[in-house]
Amino acid sequence: MRLLITGGAGFVGARLARALLARGTLAGQRIDSLVVADQAAPSADLCADARVETRVGPLLAQCEALRREPFDGVFHLASAVSGECEADFELGLRSNLDTTRALLDALRERTQAGAAPTRLVFSSSVAVFGPDAAVPMPAVVADDTLPTPQTSYGTQKLICEVLIADYTRKGYIDGRAARLMTVTVRPGRPNAAASSFFSGIIREPLAGEEAICPVSPDVSHPVSSPQRTVDGLIAVYEASREAFVGRTALNLPALNVRVGEMLDALEAVAGKAVRSRVRFERDERIAGIVARWPQRASAARAARLGLQPEKNFEDIIRQYIADCAATPQALKGLGR
Amino acid sequence: MRLLITGGAGFVGARLARALLARGTLAGQRIDSLVVADQAAPSADLCADARVETRVGPLLAQCEALRREPFDGVFHLASAVSGECEADFELGLRSNLDTTRALLDALRERTQAGAAPTRLVFSSSVAVFGPDAAVPMPAVVADDTLPTPQTSYGTQKLICEVLIADYTRKGYIDGRAARLMTVTVRPGRPNAAASSFFSGIIREPLAGEEAICPVSPDVSHPVSSPQRTVDGLIAVYEASREAFVGRTALNLPALNVRVGEMLDALEAVAGKAVRSRVRFERDERIAGIVARWPQRASAARAARLGLQPEKNFEDIIRQYIADCAATPQALKGLGR
Repeated sequence: MRLLITGGAGFVGARLARALLARGTLAGQRIDSLVVADQAAPSADLCADARVETRVGPLLAQCEALRREPFDGVFHLASAVSGECEADFELGLRSNLDTTRALLDALRERTQAGAAPTRLVFSSSVAVFGPDAAVPMPAVVADDTLPTPQTSYGTQKLICEVLIADYTRKGYIDGRAARLMTVTVRPGRPNAAASSFFSGIIREPLAGEEAICPVSPDVSHPVSSPQRTVDGLIAVYEASREAFVGRTALNLPALNVRVGEMLDALEAVAGKAVRSRVRFERDERIAGIVARWPQRASAARAARLGLQPEKNFEDIIRQYIADCAATPQALKGLGR
Repeated sequence: MRLLITGGAGFVGARLARALLARGTLAGQRIDSLVVADQAAPSADLCADARVETRVGPLLAQCEALRREPFDGVFHLASAVSGECEADFELGLRSNLDTTRALLDALRERTQAGAAPTRLVFSSSVAVFGPDAAVPMPAVVADDTLPTPQTSYGTQKLICEVLIADYTRKGYIDGRAARLMTVTVRPGRPNAAASSFFSGIIREPLAGEEAICPVSPDVSHPVSSPQRTVDGLIAVYEASREAFVGRTALNLPALNVRVGEMLDALEAVAGKAVRSRVRFERDERIAGIVARWPQRASAARAARLGLQPEKNFEDIIRQYIADCAATPQALKGLGR
C-alpha cells in the first residue's frame, strides 16, 4: 500500500512515520511506499528508508501534483500552530483551511474518476473546545461536547472536521477526524504554539536550563505522550467504519493533569534540583489563550477502540527521557 | 446608514428589504441606502425605491467591488439551497462557502484599513442539525445542540457560522448567525430545496392545483412564517452584543408542526375541497433528506430577544392568503 503523511517531518508526523515503517503493515496491508510531505525535509533516518519518498514545500502548492497520485491512505497532520494562527490570521486560513480543502478536493477528484475512496485520518485538536458566553464549557469536554472554539486555530480545525465528515458522507473519502490532546513532552526548542510551555517546563530543566511557566500551577490540561498519540492515530486509521461510529470527530485519550502535578512528577523522576529550574512568570497573552482551553477531556469512543491515556505524568517524562538516549545533551540537567 | 442584503431579490431577502424600507430606520439610524445584491434582478417595487441600488450577478464575482464599498450593516442571505447542494457538490462549496469567505474577507480588509467593524447577520439554517451514529439528535434541537449536519447545505451553513464567530472574535466584523427554520408558505413555484413541499402542499391547493406530499403525514418539522423570519433577522441585527450573548449561532423561533396538522389547518382555513387536492406519494430521495432533519426546535436565546413563534399553522396560512391580495390567481382554488 501507498501512504501519505502530510506534516510528516514534524514531531508527531515523523514519529508516526517511524512507527508505520517499523510495523511494516497497516490495516493488514504491507506498506510499500510512504510519502512524507512537509515544508521541511524529514530527518536522515526517514530519508534512508527505501520505502520513503519525500515532498518538501508548502502543501497547498503540492495538491495539484497529489491529484495525479494514488494513495491508499493519508494521515493529514500538516498545520500551522495556534500561536501562529492568532498572530497571522491569513496564514492560518491558508495553511489550515485552504490546504485541507485542496487536499480533500484532490482526493475527491480521484474518487469521482473511479478510484476507491482514500482513507484519511485528520489530526484535529482539543482546541476546538472553548467557552462561549452562550454555551459554558463543561468541566470535562467529551466527544459530543459542542465545540465553540475561541482561537482561529481551533476554528480552522473544527471546519476541517466538518468538511471531512461531509466528504465522507458523499463517499469521496473515508475520513476520520481525531482530536489530539496537547502532546508532551516535545523535544527541541520552544515553538509558536501557545501550548509550547507544557513541554518546555519539563524539557528545559532536564537539559539543565531554566524554564519559564507562563501560567499558574493550578492550570489543568488534557495531555498525551507522543507515543500514545501516534498509537491513537494508527488505531483510528485501522478501525472499521462501524467501530469508529458515525462521522463526527472523536477525542483521543487524555491524561488530565495540573501544571503543579507535572512539576511534582518531574521532581519524582528527576529530583528537586531539576524542578527548581522552573520559574513562574505570568504571560498574559499565553495565559489568556490557555484560559479558554479545556481543563479536562474524556474519550469514550477512543476507549471503545481500545485506546487508553497514560496512567500518570511520570510515565510521560520517562518516555521522553528514554527517547533522548541518542541526544545525551538533552538530559545534561539530570547530572548523570 | 448604508445596508447590503445579499440574496436580496430572493423570497426572504425581498421581504426583508421591503420591511427595512417601510421602517425607514434600523438600530436607531435612518436607512439612506439599501444595496440589493442577487443573481436575479429584484422586483419592480424594490427597484422603484430611490434608496435601493441593485447589484445583479454572482456574489463571488462582486466581492472584489464590495471591498471598496463601505457598509454599516450586511444581511447575508445569498445561498444555494439544499437540493442543489446535494446534486452539485462544487456549486454548494462555491455559492455557500467560498462566497461567504470572500464577503467576510472584504469586510475584514475594510476593518484592517481602519473602518469600524461592519455588523453582519447571517442566515444559517436548522439544517445544521442532523443525526450522526455517534451523536443521536435530541427530540428538540436547541441553541446549544451539537450540529452534525447530514447534508452539504447544512455543512456549509455550519462552517459559515463558525467562520463568522471567529471573524467577530478577532474584531473584523460584528457578526451574528441566526438559524432560520423552514420558511413557509413560500409563493411562486416549487424550487430545488428538499423542503419545497412544505410550502407546495398549501400553496398549490389554494391555487386550485394538485400537490404531491412526498413524506408521511406524521413527519414533524420546525417552520416559521416569512414575516416572523424577517422580524427575527431584524431583531438579531438590532440586538446589542450583550443581548445576543456569545458568538455561537442561535435558533430563530419555530412552530413545530406535523404535516397532518398543516393539512388540518388548511382545511380549517380553506375547506375540505382545498385539502383534498393534496395527494401522498412518497419520494424516497426527499423523504431520505427530510428524515435526517430535526422534528422540533427550541429557541431560548431568541425568546430573550422578544421573538416568539406563531401560535398555530392557521395563522401562517392566513398570512399567506393576505400576502396574495395582489395575485388573485394564487387563490383561485378557494372558489371566492
